[in-house]
Amino acid sequence: MVYKSASKEALLTEKETLLKQYEQYKAKGLSLNMARGKPSPEQLDVSMPMLDTLHSTVDYNAQDGLDCRNYGELDGIFECKKLFAEIMGVNPDSVFVGGNSSLNMMFDTISAFMTDSPYNDLEPWFNIKDRKFLCPVPGYDRHFGITGYFGFEMITVPMNSDGPDMDIIEKLVSEDSSIKGIWCVPKYSNPTGITFSDEVVKRFANLKPAAKDFRIMWDNAYAVHDVNDTPDTLLNIVDECEKSGNVDMPIVFCSTSKITFSGAGVAAMSASKLNMDFLKKRYTYATIGYDKINMLRHAKFFGDFKGLKKHMQKHKELLSPKFSTVIDKLNSNFKDNGIAEWTNPNGGYFVSVDVYPGTAKKVVELCKNAGVVLTGAGATFPNSMDPEDKNIRIAPSFPSVEELSLAMDIFCVCVKLAAIDKFI
Amino acid sequence: MVYKSASKEALLTEKETLLKQYEQYKAKGLSLNMARGKPSPEQLDVSMPMLDTLHSTVDYNAQDGLDCRNYGELDGIFECKKLFAEIMGVNPDSVFVGGNSSLNMMFDTISAFMTDSPYNDLEPWFNIKDRKFLCPVPGYDRHFGITGYFGFEMITVPMNSDGPDMDIIEKLVSEDSSIKGIWCVPKYSNPTGITFSDEVVKRFANLKPAAKDFRIMWDNAYAVHDVNDTPDTLLNIVDECEKSGNVDMPIVFCSTSKITFSGAGVAAMSASKLNMDFLKKRYTYATIGYDKINMLRHAKFFGDFKGLKKHMQKHKELLSPKFSTVIDKLNSNFKDNGIAEWTNPNGGYFVSVDVYPGTAKKVVELCKNAGVVLTGAGATFPNSMDPEDKNIRIAPSFPSVEELSLAMDIFCVCVKLAAIDKFI
Repeated sequence: MVYKSASKEALLTEKETLLKQYEQYKAKGLSLNMARGKPSPEQLDVSMPMLDTLHSTVDYNAQDGLDCRNYGELDGIFECKKLFAEIMGVNPDSVFVGGNSSLNMMFDTISAFMTDSPYNDLEPWFNIKDRKFLCPVPGYDRHFGITGYFGFEMITVPMNSDGPDMDIIEKLVSEDSSIKGIWCVPKYSNPTGITFSDEVVKRFANLKPAAKDFRIMWDNAYAVHDVNDTPDTLLNIVDECEKSGNVDMPIVFCSTSKITFSGAGVAAMSASKLNMDFLKKRYTYATIGYDKINMLRHAKFFGDFKGLKKHMQKHKELLSPKFSTVIDKLNSNFKDNGIAEWTNPNGGYFVSVDVYPGTAKKVVELCKNAGVVLTGAGATFPNSMDPEDKNIRIAPSFPSVEELSLAMDIFCVCVKLAAIDKFI
Repeated sequence: MVYKSASKEALLTEKETLLKQYEQYKAKGLSLNMARGKPSPEQLDVSMPMLDTLHSTVDYNAQDGLDCRNYGELDGIFECKKLFAEIMGVNPDSVFVGGNSSLNMMFDTISAFMTDSPYNDLEPWFNIKDRKFLCPVPGYDRHFGITGYFGFEMITVPMNSDGPDMDIIEKLVSEDSSIKGIWCVPKYSNPTGITFSDEVVKRFANLKPAAKDFRIMWDNAYAVHDVNDTPDTLLNIVDECEKSGNVDMPIVFCSTSKITFSGAGVAAMSASKLNMDFLKKRYTYATIGYDKINMLRHAKFFGDFKGLKKHMQKHKELLSPKFSTVIDKLNSNFKDNGIAEWTNPNGGYFVSVDVYPGTAKKVVELCKNAGVVLTGAGATFPNSMDPEDKNIRIAPSFPSVEELSLAMDIFCVCVKLAAIDKFI
């Protein structure tokens, strides 16, 4: 039914049907969760053999002979640097391997700039009272959380199907030196699932920021995370920035949180010498080094990048039917009726749904009351403020296909229920 | 020979003998290291069975059913909290379990206070232009490194045999609200190996700081690290602060870096609700949670605190002969001749030697040229400035007893060589 062109009577009948369906779902007392991009237990199972790579009778030395059990090696073991270098498409020497969280490395990076600067003639960001950060929306709530915590004014930039609106970004960064950076998930973006086009990456690399310490936080979280056989490709920001001379602008992050274990993976970053010297100056005081045994465990498990890519096929096989389920449900419920729009990503962890404007909060609440937990409405915007109250992030990875199918049925009923009142 | 009362002729003969010995050592082309408090490979070996506690066919759930492989549980799994609570003598609910480095948690703590405050009416420390931190000396170089990095003026306080000079501390903190904290290694202190007396702990708990946000960084790194059968005991700072009403003053840290693996242990902290709420506010944005698989591995390996203490006996057996070697060499070379003084600790990782004033740098250099690497002279002081140029930290844990014995022979010759010139 196309609500816009339906009669009031037809809408009222439809609403009654929807309410009946909703109450039936509610009566089931379900507990389904599509809130966070958490791998399913089956996905975690595929990495269990990694735990067997290191045990009490095997060699615990890195390839250079370093005893991984002891202190040392601030930026990680070489075999892990090499693996991450291939994921990020950078030189191994530019890689810093950290703990289990790339989010933590992003936080540390912003934190470093807050109280210190790589440039003698610039102030730490704490002293920039009107410091600002660009936030493409919808985007990743935990990114916005970091710059929110550090008191940045967060300027939203619309996300298009090929990346953030570069016209707006080029204008803003060239005019305002208090804009210190931008958050990006350039491949299979969180939550829209789109990948930045070559042109967008090139325009990023050729930005002319007013602030010398403007940084692109390039969170390549889903670099190898395809969910079907038509994967996206992402132009290499580091290469492009070398061509444009903006080598110090990008800082690239990735991790194995969604490759091996979300709770016990390994994270890494890569940046120019100026940036890494600046950050290592901090890390030198912050730690003696991260968990090298877990680094070695990962390096031994994968062998090389080819092994890692082969491993990712297993995730793809588990995720593919889940993404299909979500897209199929959306298609069968909302195709051409104007109540919802969504993306159909080739990878990543999310499907972004724009429900009818002004109803996202209502949809999330209706779902919750029927036992389906969604990411909070507005979470994909800084300070959880979605001006049109329409974006909802669907995370299909954790539930089983059966649970997901049921959860999506409920979701679709809720989307219709919330929308129909706007037409009656 | 007592240099002070020896004739010039006797001293010159002695110097010649020493030089001959020194050149003989030098000719051996040795490479010995007593620089850092690194466990020996044999010590790391005793924890190897821990790697077998988790493999692909065992349960990976925490006792509350949480899948340790997945995201979640910001402050760590309960069984690990419980273990650390017993090490620190605190309530498990007050414990935050982190990554592999307690130093990192200390850094994060200072970092949190730099840009934020738990008190609405107080400024973040970044805004306190003359911020100061108290540093008992000799002390731990990495502590001083953190407050140095964050631009604190570091005020040294002499360490006595029962802890830092409390008369000075009481006076300073009560008078100056820009003094924001003090570094402490209260048990088997780094480097002197002394343990704070009950009276010192009580005086700490009863401090009346001018700064409401004055914090005692209580780094209980060697809580269970005895090296002989006459262990020290430390009064519980948290209990004492509860009695005195200063609950928000202490922040306690510990780790398994010198219990299991220095490169892959688990760290933890404990503090009052006000402090933990303040720090968790930061951690909520900084990470989704630390490595729970490694936490579980530790919890399974030890079983309980009794198991952990039993495990520490193995370290004691390995470390005991090394500490004896150092003390025996010092005794046989310097007893009553006035060239060196040292401590004889019951635990920890160091022996602190005060060589003849004005010769520590020279001793370290002589040792280095003969193939024996020591902690840099002055390292135990803020900004590496030892005003008397006399303190040297000996770290006996890493070399074998044979290597250590030889290294100490060389060290003793170098101490004498450096001193004798002061008398000729």
